[in-house]
Amino acid sequence: MKPLNTIVQENRVVGEIANGLPLTIPVYRLKGSGTGPSVYIQANMHGAEVQGNAVIYQLLELLKHLPLNGDITLVPYANPIGCNQKSGEFTLGRFDPITGTNWNRMYHDHTDLLDDFLLNHSHLDDSALKSRFKRLLIEQSQKRLDGPANHLTTGKRIALNLQRLAHEADIVLDLHTGPISTKHLYCPLYAQESARYFDIQNVLLIPEGFGGAMDEACFCPWWQLSSALQAKGRDFDVAVEAFTVELGSQEKIDLREAKDDARGILSYLAHKEVIVSSEFKPRKMKRFGCYLKDYEAFYAPMGGMVEYTAPLGEPIPAGTTIAHILRMERYLSEQPLNVISIDKPAIPILHFASASVNQGTELYKFFTNYFEL
Amino acid sequence: MKPLNTIVQENRVVGEIANGLPLTIPVYRLKGSGTGPSVYIQANMHGAEVQGNAVIYQLLELLKHLPLNGDITLVPYANPIGCNQKSGEFTLGRFDPITGTNWNRMYHDHTDLLDDFLLNHSHLDDSALKSRFKRLLIEQSQKRLDGPANHLTTGKRIALNLQRLAHEADIVLDLHTGPISTKHLYCPLYAQESARYFDIQNVLLIPEGFGGAMDEACFCPWWQLSSALQAKGRDFDVAVEAFTVELGSQEKIDLREAKDDARGILSYLAHKEVIVSSEFKPRKMKRFGCYLKDYEAFYAPMGGMVEYTAPLGEPIPAGTTIAHILRMERYLSEQPLNVISIDKPAIPILHFASASVNQGTELYKFFTNYFEL
Amino acid sequence: MKPLNTIVQENRVVGEIANGLPLTIPVYRLKGSGTGPSVYIQANMHGAEVQGNAVIYQLLELLKHLPLNGDITLVPYANPIGCNQKSGEFTLGRFDPITGTNWNRMYHDHTDLLDDFLLNHSHLDDSALKSRFKRLLIEQSQKRLDGPANHLTTGKRIALNLQRLAHEADIVLDLHTGPISTKHLYCPLYAQESARYFDIQNVLLIPEGFGGAMDEACFCPWWQLSSALQAKGRDFDVAVEAFTVELGSQEKIDLREAKDDARGILSYLAHKEVIVSSEFKPRKMKRFGCYLKDYEAFYAPMGGMVEYTAPLGEPIPAGTTIAHILRMERYLSEQPLNVISIDKPAIPILHFASASVNQGTELYKFFTNYFEL
Amino acid sequence: MKPLNTIVQENRVVGEIANGLPLTIPVYRLKGSGTGPSVYIQANMHGAEVQGNAVIYQLLELLKHLPLNGDITLVPYANPIGCNQKSGEFTLGRFDPITGTNWNRMYHDHTDLLDDFLLNHSHLDDSALKSRFKRLLIEQSQKRLDGPANHLTTGKRIALNLQRLAHEADIVLDLHTGPISTKHLYCPLYAQESARYFDIQNVLLIPEGFGGAMDEACFCPWWQLSSALQAKGRDFDVAVEAFTVELGSQEKIDLREAKDDARGILSYLAHKEVIVSSEFKPRKMKRFGCYLKDYEAFYAPMGGMVEYTAPLGEPIPAGTTIAHILRMERYLSEQPLNVISIDKPAIPILHFASASVNQGTELYKFFTNYFEL
Repeated sequence: MKPLNTIVQENRVVGEIANGLPLTIPVYRLKGSGTGPSVYIQANMHGAEVQGNAVIYQLLELLKHLPLNGDITLVPYANPIGCNQKSGEFTLGRFDPITGTNWNRMYHDHTDLLDDFLLNHSHLDDSALKSRFKRLLIEQSQKRLDGPANHLTTGKRIALNLQRLAHEADIVLDLHTGPISTKHLYCPLYAQESARYFDIQNVLLIPEGFGGAMDEACFCPWWQLSSALQAKGRDFDVAVEAFTVELGSQEKIDLREAKDDARGILSYLAHKEVIVSSEFKPRKMKRFGCYLKDYEAFYAPMGGMVEYTAPLGEPIPAGTTIAHILRMERYLSEQPLNVISIDKPAIPILHFASASVNQGTELYKFFTNYFEL
Repeated sequence: MKPLNTIVQENRVVGEIANGLPLTIPVYRLKGSGTGPSVYIQANMHGAEVQGNAVIYQLLELLKHLPLNGDITLVPYANPIGCNQKSGEFTLGRFDPITGTNWNRMYHDHTDLLDDFLLNHSHLDDSALKSRFKRLLIEQSQKRLDGPANHLTTGKRIALNLQRLAHEADIVLDLHTGPISTKHLYCPLYAQESARYFDIQNVLLIPEGFGGAMDEACFCPWWQLSSALQAKGRDFDVAVEAFTVELGSQEKIDLREAKDDARGILSYLAHKEVIVSSEFKPRKMKRFGCYLKDYEAFYAPMGGMVEYTAPLGEPIPAGTTIAHILRMERYLSEQPLNVISIDKPAIPILHFASASVNQGTELYKFFTNYFEL
Repeated sequence: MKPLNTIVQENRVVGEIANGLPLTIPVYRLKGSGTGPSVYIQANMHGAEVQGNAVIYQLLELLKHLPLNGDITLVPYANPIGCNQKSGEFTLGRFDPITGTNWNRMYHDHTDLLDDFLLNHSHLDDSALKSRFKRLLIEQSQKRLDGPANHLTTGKRIALNLQRLAHEADIVLDLHTGPISTKHLYCPLYAQESARYFDIQNVLLIPEGFGGAMDEACFCPWWQLSSALQAKGRDFDVAVEAFTVELGSQEKIDLREAKDDARGILSYLAHKEVIVSSEFKPRKMKRFGCYLKDYEAFYAPMGGMVEYTAPLGEPIPAGTTIAHILRMERYLSEQPLNVISIDKPAIPILHFASASVNQGTELYKFFTNYFEL
Repeated sequence: MKPLNTIVQENRVVGEIANGLPLTIPVYRLKGSGTGPSVYIQANMHGAEVQGNAVIYQLLELLKHLPLNGDITLVPYANPIGCNQKSGEFTLGRFDPITGTNWNRMYHDHTDLLDDFLLNHSHLDDSALKSRFKRLLIEQSQKRLDGPANHLTTGKRIALNLQRLAHEADIVLDLHTGPISTKHLYCPLYAQESARYFDIQNVLLIPEGFGGAMDEACFCPWWQLSSALQAKGRDFDVAVEAFTVELGSQEKIDLREAKDDARGILSYLAHKEVIVSSEFKPRKMKRFGCYLKDYEAFYAPMGGMVEYTAPLGEPIPAGTTIAHILRMERYLSEQPLNVISIDKPAIPILHFASASVNQGTELYKFFTNYFEL
């Protein structure tokens, strides 16, 4: 079948390594009619979280045949260092191996631009204000990339390159996975309604506040702009929606699952009228929400070998056994098999990838005080 | 239920690390009546291969209630460096992180003792010969441990400590796992009959020859002794059986599976009359054998993101697709989704643990030219 | 010579690892007459920064013969995970290998205790106020250690154990090193006078504000207490002095240098009347100060192989060549040897430990806008 | 000054990584008159051993102005994975991070070609025999590269690419460094005379036998050819000389030192009449030889923090203190400062790069039973 849309590729150089090899990222673009919102989707910022690349593959396969209102930019392999950093049989791609800094905490916080922007541009109408602010975010990202090379860390340079592309869009999706994980969505509070259009049961609701991640880098300035205008009595909707989509477990490519995930994303994009299609509808499911402050890490209360027993993604009552921790060096002296349970109702979202843990290793993350969305 | 047997624990110091912390290994012993062969079982020499610890746990739970003819020694956590070496979320425990040397290639080869031993002791009867040679292996291992401390590497010291214990036994089981793997058994050719008593479908048949692993360290000297006597016209069975038991996948504790594995091991030990029990019988199953020379590694023909599609443990015909390799940077220019197939009938035994590979990363290992046992 | 003082050792368990091995830290204590301030000194929180252990060794050798007014607590090997974490031939001890979190950014911030404390205790006189606040900091640290085990990360548990000991003292020294580095001192602004008593030429002046490090964890609450009382018109000196002492380069033990460093520390402790001795005086030297905001990182403007050419510790004029970056893959096409210079007067304090860098790797850190102290 | 010789660059693709990025190696070639032997020089096969790149830089700077009899091929950055593999602040480049295999143990052993070659070609005269055998080595290396991609590991593919180039040459130099090291030369026994023309004081004499390194891969087949012909009564000199040149310490670029090293190499090449120049003469120095069997590793007899005290490169008498090992956790209970000495005369060649060691870490390597060359 002849594609409806042309896909254009551009390779973006985002750094260079010790032997001079350039770090390049492939960027794919589809052009829409211009009547709908534009979209930016990236994957694999963390090296082991590869499934998003397969989702982008399936999205491209579907999108080339769909009428588009908005432009769509897709970036697989977002982090050329992370996805090539092996240590033993696994990918060591959550943080810069030199500094330990999480690759998804290096985006730039543009909120310091706000006061000055409002001073000079708050007379503009909503549409002009939006387009002016968008231009500002793009320009300021580019400006930092064009500044003195000795001012930018390796990770910041990668992040700014991606962010510069993402600021062009009205909708931003950053595709991640957990270690061993059920699907879940990081959703800013103001966009809660949109969460119903993804096929993702568990939704984490994020307050205003910048922690360095891509989604925050994209929605924070707009959210603060909206709040600042609100404070002055002007209604101005947050003009950008940005989500971190957690696709499941790391170190796994599943093409069929990726197709389902792509369809779930298209359901949201159809709702947003980016694509023109009645084919993609959200599946009926019970959805759960949880505020970020109630997203609890459960650290291993002892070192040992762990059997994980909590079912991921489903509510469990208080008192449920979530793990057995085996301590063979105390087989005779104490209880070798230790039952670990949770003391409140919760939804287990993810657990640690390894079966051996130190005391204090993050064993699980749980939705607590969750509610039906 | 009051245990029938007493279990005794001893902690063996096998080294010390930079801040002086001693590396200790727990050793559990059960005493038999002395009428059956003695057994040594260890687990977790490779840091991520933890399931053997759970099998030892289940063995202890069962063995304490069983009448024993032979002494049994069980060593979980055999490698205190390996199982505590994390790099990112996984355990980096296949090799010494300083040197890269595989922890299971550092056992000592005692075959140079053979000529001298035969010269001095071949007049002894079978039983005396066996007990004298066993003593020699134990003494020589201990001698190296007692020698100048600056002659031993970290790994060799651990290995010699374990080997010294293992040489006391007539039966040696080294519990390992693959990366993502089906169960399989490394079985020396002469012990092929014994392979029928484990509940393990796929059996790798090992020729004489020392590569540095625990099983080889235990059976090689005895095999060579047998061959040397044979050459002189004397029939002397290989007096020791040693196996590497591959329990499945790494980074996983499954207590129920461990119980099954423990029962499988007891089936073999009952056959060998180490334990007195009619409870443990091998399950009926079709078993496949493969010679080590036909155990083929299949290296990634290209770098990329891998979907593994071959069913582990079951025969597949020539031409079966074993993987899709996704190469998103060539979505427009070439085929992004590459189908990888195998060109001969095979049984896929294990595959790489990560979904992202370099060109040349070991993707799979296959039994080829396999046959029914 | 018979020691004047008794040294007492206590081993503090600060965690446990996967095979159940306890993580223990040796704590040495000397008792003073009670008429001078008490002291806490720790070393090796970062695994590769070992020279502080040698300084503690030399301090113990000297202190056992000196009359003491104040109690002294010394903690070598502060981080039993960090100093045993090898990756290749070097120590990977700056961050938790699982999470990437810097071990020296996990101390607890007690400043939220302040309002409540002032409400209840500001009627106390200076001495009672100090002793009550000190007790509070100790109790609150201990309380967190005694809380649910699943609330603490591995690093936080280590940090709280150390912090709990450090809060007992009036003077806290955290011994670190840089990668390749000249000696320098992190000194809180209010303690600037004390910096003259160390034998350290370059002094970084730190403002109020908590970043997670040991020195900050110790001085921040006291500084804020002082500021809060000041705001109410009451003069209350910051009651605790805490410094990070950077001893030079990592991965190096030099016992003679350690003795010099110990003598420098004793010079400060004599000035503070912790020890009674006229033997230890600061050396005459020109000292330079630099505000933290002017402590500039210089990131590699290109990837490549680096020859470091800036002399560490000494002022250099604007335009000085600080590195050559070799790029052999462009020998014919472009300049293979790139001269990197700094565009302002500076004192080079440290440089990266490796000769090969990515674009954006931290090449150097410089004092800029430095001044004579 | 206008160069006398043209330098040509070719980029060789030796693999590809997970995101499809090709691994390329720059290859520089200078053409000689054809009257002298041809030369192959490579550097940086181990990631942290960077100084060889600087030596190649200086060689290129000098060679472009020198009359050449033989062709010269120079390959910096020989291992694009190794030199870009960071773990913390250092380069983790001695072994494949996935498998632990030393990058310099993966070259191919061509000795199995010998019997067949002799059968078919021993009638040829010396010159034809040499050129036929050289062609065979090149063809067989290429054949393996052209074989099924799934038969080659990542490292073997890199090694074969380099080896294929190296087999074209009559002289092969593989530039390495030790961890912290004095200069030394790996020299095959038959080429002992040539060792006098390098400016390297300490020379390790290597017997016939293949261990997987580049120098061995180059000289072994020729040495065995020579021996085989000798056995048949025909005198046939080993036609290729191959050395591993150890330039000093890793993680260091020193351009001036590199110039000296380049001149030392040119002294050898002048002697071999590769270059036409009277400028480069070996320096007068006492040279020491040591047989490989007498090259002794000294493993840390205890874990601890190490002060290295042996002077590298110079003979020391038996009983010399080579290290102090500090064990602060036993300050009160035992001797905290342990003196380590060597019990025989030796030349310390290198020591471990880190100051903290496990029991059994390789502390030093020594020439023992050394002799004047």
